Amino acid sequence: MTSTPTNPVLVHALRGAAIESQHRGAIAVVDADGTLHSALGDTRRPVFPRSAVKVLQALPLVESGAAERYGLTDEELALACASHGGEPQHAQAAAAMLAKAGMDVSALECGAHWPYFDGAIKAVATAGQQPTALNNNCSGKHAGFVCLGCLMAEGHDRDRRAFLSGYIKPDHPVMREVTAALQAATGHDLTNTPVGVDGCSIPTFAVPLHNLAHAFARVGTGVGLRAGHARAALRLRRAVAKAPHMVAGTGRFDSRVMQRLGQRVFCKVGAEGVYCAALPELGLGVALKMDDGNNARAAEVVMAALIEELLPLAAADLVFMRGFSDAALVNWNGIEVGRLQAAPPLRSASVARAVGAG
Amino acid sequence: MTSTPTNPVLVHALRGAAIESQHRGAIAVVDADGTLHSALGDTRRPVFPRSAVKVLQALPLVESGAAERYGLTDEELALACASHGGEPQHAQAAAAMLAKAGMDVSALECGAHWPYFDGAIKAVATAGQQPTALNNNCSGKHAGFVCLGCLMAEGHDRDRRAFLSGYIKPDHPVMREVTAALQAATGHDLTNTPVGVDGCSIPTFAVPLHNLAHAFARVGTGVGLRAGHARAALRLRRAVAKAPHMVAGTGRFDSRVMQRLGQRVFCKVGAEGVYCAALPELGLGVALKMDDGNNARAAEVVMAALIEELLPLAAADLVFMRGFSDAALVNWNGIEVGRLQAAPPLRSASVARAVGAG
Repeated sequence: MTSTPTNPVLVHALRGAAIESQHRGAIAVVDADGTLHSALGDTRRPVFPRSAVKVLQALPLVESGAAERYGLTDEELALACASHGGEPQHAQAAAAMLAKAGMDVSALECGAHWPYFDGAIKAVATAGQQPTALNNNCSGKHAGFVCLGCLMAEGHDRDRRAFLSGYIKPDHPVMREVTAALQAATGHDLTNTPVGVDGCSIPTFAVPLHNLAHAFARVGTGVGLRAGHARAALRLRRAVAKAPHMVAGTGRFDSRVMQRLGQRVFCKVGAEGVYCAALPELGLGVALKMDDGNNARAAEVVMAALIEELLPLAAADLVFMRGFSDAALVNWNGIEVGRLQAAPPLRSASVARAVGAG
Repeated sequence: MTSTPTNPVLVHALRGAAIESQHRGAIAVVDADGTLHSALGDTRRPVFPRSAVKVLQALPLVESGAAERYGLTDEELALACASHGGEPQHAQAAAAMLAKAGMDVSALECGAHWPYFDGAIKAVATAGQQPTALNNNCSGKHAGFVCLGCLMAEGHDRDRRAFLSGYIKPDHPVMREVTAALQAATGHDLTNTPVGVDGCSIPTFAVPLHNLAHAFARVGTGVGLRAGHARAALRLRRAVAKAPHMVAGTGRFDSRVMQRLGQRVFCKVGAEGVYCAALPELGLGVALKMDDGNNARAAEVVMAALIEELLPLAAADLVFMRGFSDAALVNWNGIEVGRLQAAPPLRSASVARAVGAG
């Protein structure tokens, strides 16, 4: 993973009529057979997908039977795929998942941080409290790991807490299962790719955008997944479509888009400018990474533009998505000072052509 | 201000041993005669300097005599040049500046926002309060505008509050004075350049990095400024060196660097990845802009690397600066997961050569 060649500019930040900043990146749109339908930039360089692949990491939770064994709800399964805002209902759902498996917050190894959602920060502070691991944006994913581990320990009649300890390590049976699901879905050799430690301390494996998009085409269609993973993917997509607030939170892109478009889109942000999505009705998966990675602002614009270009949308839905792909920047006095806009390469025929060519 | 040509990669974000993200940008290092000493990328494209030029915008406050008339302290003058964290002492100093001119928070037209500093957010929330315009990161700059306006109104025997109203507008006498100072220092024709509205609602004029660096060489030396501006620049630099906490705040780059290096560096961040600095002992000014602009993370790395490369530093100071130019990235469990590093072009002889060639 060396310096990239020069990826195209995908987003402009305008102030007044002038380009103030710009964001480069790469995009892959792939079908479930692994055929590339459209691409911009370098899609073969491995990138760390970070939280964008939480749905892949949650496949073993469902396939193993742990989700059924502990009676996890749609809300809780959506939380297992989430980078949530640490709002009270997120933290409560994570606690409920743990309780169903007979565990509590002390089992979580993701670390604590202040909630992402402003309102939740203020709620915790006003109550004179400190955030816990339940407020960590990954607490649902980790609660899912704990549920999976509890089932694995039951199966082997082991002390569950002792078995769970260190579940974030690459060689722990829980993490081996999670990594195997990632490898199966992406088809990328994870034993021979850069590996890092994620924000929540589990390993993150670098995967080319082409393979990430392929994995999401598989998640959206079931094609190319083994039967257990295909059923799990369908279950997780349905859960997120029923409880989109749980996958992100108040005012956030993934929740808002899936509240609006339901199962037509499954999209998930990752840190450092990564986004993945499945567009099941088209049989396509999408993966993108902004070079600068800094935060989600440019990645959201690109994902919105891709949804617009690829998915046939009613006029009102198009207007809704355009609110993200051509968004007003407003200052502290509420004055519109600029716009955040998808750049010309995203509006080219070559991106939309994917659908016709499918 | 069209899309830039391809500026070089100046910062790498590593996760493990792999490059996860990268930041492109441009740099100009210029002396007080306007001679370019070193450059990377496109330094002729006008960029919005945003808050990086607050010291230039504060020149009229001092030159006019308003700072002396109202007895502004070092802390208050530093605050006039600040993008502060909205901490209690920042808000209190802004209130004190206004009180000295017989005004209060209602005179500020910058808008209110939650403080930048986490501890200040929690303090406001815990007290059950809402932030005011005093917490706005620009409140000191605006309090300075109000002081300048009050003196101008006195001089003309006008009702001060009526005179001040709309001081954020380009054609208001206060803002005309501020813009004239910016034009004089940068030597760039502001009547013929892109203009936008800044976060705090005053105009921001696009200026090439070359001219911004030239302006900061002038601020650091007084050379090329008219006598009143030269005296004002010296007064403001001294004030900031005496009260560096006021120019940014707890844990923030500008405060920490100037607490350490005193008057050897005057540096100031701007939104969207801009940084300007004066290195008075070298007679040099520095200006940089990261293409992606997203937040300050990459701009700080570049500014730290430039200070290291340009300024002769004692070993302990070099280690201190290296903590910014090659910084550990730590996750929620306190594990080092990567590094944020100045890229090779910044470590090249061509950057450091500026000094020898001076």
